[in-house]
Amino acid sequence: MVRNTVGVIGGGQLARMMIPPAVELGIDIRVLEEAEGMSAEIAATGVGDYRDLDTVLAFAETVDVITFDHEHVPPAILRELVSRGVPVHPGPDALLYAQDKIQMRAKLSDLGLPVPDWAAVESADELAAFLADHGGRAVVKTARGGYDGKGVRVVSEASEADDWFLALAEDGRGGALLVEELVSFRRELAQLIARRPSGDSAVWPVVETVQRDGVCAEVIAPAPGAGRAAEAAAEIATRIADGLGVTGVLAVELFETTDGRILVNELAMRPHNSGHWSIEGAVTSQFEQHLRAVLDLPLGETRQRDEWSVMVNILGGPAEGSLQDRYPAALAAHPEAKFHGYGKEPRPGRKVGHVTVGGDDLDDVVYRARAAAAYFEG
Amino acid sequence: MVRNTVGVIGGGQLARMMIPPAVELGIDIRVLEEAEGMSAEIAATGVGDYRDLDTVLAFAETVDVITFDHEHVPPAILRELVSRGVPVHPGPDALLYAQDKIQMRAKLSDLGLPVPDWAAVESADELAAFLADHGGRAVVKTARGGYDGKGVRVVSEASEADDWFLALAEDGRGGALLVEELVSFRRELAQLIARRPSGDSAVWPVVETVQRDGVCAEVIAPAPGAGRAAEAAAEIATRIADGLGVTGVLAVELFETTDGRILVNELAMRPHNSGHWSIEGAVTSQFEQHLRAVLDLPLGETRQRDEWSVMVNILGGPAEGSLQDRYPAALAAHPEAKFHGYGKEPRPGRKVGHVTVGGDDLDDVVYRARAAAAYFEG
Repeated sequence: MVRNTVGVIGGGQLARMMIPPAVELGIDIRVLEEAEGMSAEIAATGVGDYRDLDTVLAFAETVDVITFDHEHVPPAILRELVSRGVPVHPGPDALLYAQDKIQMRAKLSDLGLPVPDWAAVESADELAAFLADHGGRAVVKTARGGYDGKGVRVVSEASEADDWFLALAEDGRGGALLVEELVSFRRELAQLIARRPSGDSAVWPVVETVQRDGVCAEVIAPAPGAGRAAEAAAEIATRIADGLGVTGVLAVELFETTDGRILVNELAMRPHNSGHWSIEGAVTSQFEQHLRAVLDLPLGETRQRDEWSVMVNILGGPAEGSLQDRYPAALAAHPEAKFHGYGKEPRPGRKVGHVTVGGDDLDDVVYRARAAAAYFEG
Repeated sequence: MVRNTVGVIGGGQLARMMIPPAVELGIDIRVLEEAEGMSAEIAATGVGDYRDLDTVLAFAETVDVITFDHEHVPPAILRELVSRGVPVHPGPDALLYAQDKIQMRAKLSDLGLPVPDWAAVESADELAAFLADHGGRAVVKTARGGYDGKGVRVVSEASEADDWFLALAEDGRGGALLVEELVSFRRELAQLIARRPSGDSAVWPVVETVQRDGVCAEVIAPAPGAGRAAEAAAEIATRIADGLGVTGVLAVELFETTDGRILVNELAMRPHNSGHWSIEGAVTSQFEQHLRAVLDLPLGETRQRDEWSVMVNILGGPAEGSLQDRYPAALAAHPEAKFHGYGKEPRPGRKVGHVTVGGDDLDDVVYRARAAAAYFEG
């Protein structure tokens, strides 16, 4: 029997953006949302806590395969699903490396992949030693639970991480913080890849990502002038996807250093903000490809449909009212732009939508995408 | 207040294909389906008979604007909605011309638009007279209720329509049949246009449609070598949309005659099979544009994204099992194709899905689209 019902744990915008390709392909998509009225509401068939085993098991009984809007489902629950024969993609053995940054760094180092200098530090003394070896400044990260710049801090004194060490100690499970060299980078890149359980994989062109305050603001596809870096990025992503046994979409965030190296920054094992451009910009979007991959269906072509695609996030949204209040003006000014609203209440800094523009003149495309997104600010 | 909730009456594949752009734009879409488990099920918020006033009124109270998956809602119900202040697009005054082919022919003739010779005939004698004036053969159509070749018959004897005359007489409301000259055409074209209540409109490139057994089988966008016919088709569609006050998407089916004229064949006031190519093939698809139009939002660009787009219907589907059973083979062979399944049970002749391929070599694109669709036959 061909599997055709995909269950997504988590009702955020990534689950929401899986719905259009599911509807198009005739795939039955069902979402377990954390609360009523979330972004993926239209496909929600369950509401509950993804940390509750019974809730997840009951949801899993209604679908053929489990995948995710986020990486926060506890490993013990995922292992229980697997032990009961439920296909879970990505599986717990792979997802571990997206859930724990120290495990990720250790695994990538084992695989011989290029990463910043790093250490797992359990005390301020160990952190101070790392700082002393790395010019007096470094990046400290909590191993778990960080996203969009949260759980990341640049420090020049070991004491600046005291609160995190204290929290780890109070947590009772012990554990360490991740400390990394402060990489001097020219820009940030992201390489997306999708991989099937059967092992086939497909990469999209490497993209340039622009962060503001630790949050993705813009993505340019392909990364301008990537040259040899594009090949390196694709090879790194393929080695990670294979080496970690990732299934579904994997996003590899990369640094292009000022001395021309490509280093792995972060991993995300799900569709990713750096791939939203692919909805219109690639023959197969990351969301369609994720569905194909988790159903172990053949992957689609990842060719870009425009010479350039630029995606600009709508962060925060209008100070009053909804995104839709701005549609009359925005759509009139930019008939060429593709507008995406996530059905979320505007709130400062929150990702509430995005705009993508495609074309063959990069300056023009960047200008239009920014101008279109600007209609939703303030 | 900006309207943002669209109510669609009818749960077929046209309603289904409105769901992806609604989800993308952040528009709340709700469907009144005729029965549970229809094609647009995921957006269904009501189940009931669209010929029942109370059912439709209750549904209308939950949305900002009413539009349609089909043209069969009784005019009296639509007028009641309008009288209660519910925006209905297209409105009953326009929809009349899609519901009644005699009214349509009369109106287009009044507007001076090019149509085949026609007459409304109330008896076999009147039909015989028309046949005598038109070389002994003609096309007879029921004024109401036909689609996909149903309610259409080529006759050479007046008696061949006796059963339809009898049915009209038994119906008690009287009425007539439409008879039209048998047009000698080179090919069939379709011109889609979207029009806002405020009057703005936008056309897509004219397309060539290929019918088999009265049902659309393939669409080529743009119509190869359309030349001057493309301008004529766009002008005709604009005059019809304006002249009839259409809101939303209007499809104008056209004959390109062997002597080079363009004649209007049929009208459909909703997204149409001849526009499915636009989902991937145009900057703004017919489904997104329909949503924009019925919400009176500015229309999007209709430019083609590929030099050629070819859509091939999946008619009937697999003799056993579902479309999805064929996905492993079809997707592997055609990573470039976009597959659409409507969530309908396969049944001979039924439209259960379609495939679209884009590219710059027409022969290659046609070949690939047909080959990809063929995986779902037999």
